[in-house]
Amino acid sequence: MIALVVFAHGSKVEAANQAVREMARRVQTRSGYETEAAFLEIAEPDLPGAVEGLVARGATRIIVLPYFLAPGRHAERDLPRIVAELRAIHINVRIDAAANLDGHPALVDILVDRASAVLEEP
Amino acid sequence: MIALVVFAHGSKVEAANQAVREMARRVQTRSGYETEAAFLEIAEPDLPGAVEGLVARGATRIIVLPYFLAPGRHAERDLPRIVAELRAIHINVRIDAAANLDGHPALVDILVDRASAVLEEP
Repeated sequence: MIALVVFAHGSKVEAANQAVREMARRVQTRSGYETEAAFLEIAEPDLPGAVEGLVARGATRIIVLPYFLAPGRHAERDLPRIVAELRAIHINVRIDAAANLDGHPALVDILVDRASAVLEEP
Repeated sequence: MIALVVFAHGSKVEAANQAVREMARRVQTRSGYETEAAFLEIAEPDLPGAVEGLVARGATRIIVLPYFLAPGRHAERDLPRIVAELRAIHINVRIDAAANLDGHPALVDILVDRASAVLEEP
């Protein structure tokens, strides 16, 4: 069973954490794969907790989706370290990290859409 | 003349700032509007500096595009304050802030694409 984790930093603003959880729900609906939100810090669950839950529910392959806009120490340094630790714990589960959002062409579309929405206001 | 500003937090990781500047270039190409990158802190230019440059080059309407994934204090509190200050300085320029990226349906597509790229690896 393949499962996904939307992995974000975690915020003191609870609405921001809820936005990540909502994103995980949408990714699950779109992809058909069970999908959890997880956070580096501040919010719950953390990535080990989310992975443990997915493994308990039968996941044999887990893909971590970094919900970060740019390369930075969290996605580039913290995440690989955590993934290595998780692989050592869950030796029968394949765990991989995907690329972050940076460079995806649809980000340009989103920004242009946001500008258009303002220009279309009366 | 309409101009856009891609407004991000700013990072100690210079590659992250360069990614924002590259995004501004892509938005300019896609939209046809002159587009600058600007940063809340750490990186240059800041938002007042970017706006000043665009006004000097003839901008009469400026739309600030918050390059943030979630509601938080930077996009929700700092940005409106800075925009209010800029309106008081540039009284003949219409300055508006767009919505941040949160909730845009294409974000789901990007995450599902990132997962698919991993699943298609040999």
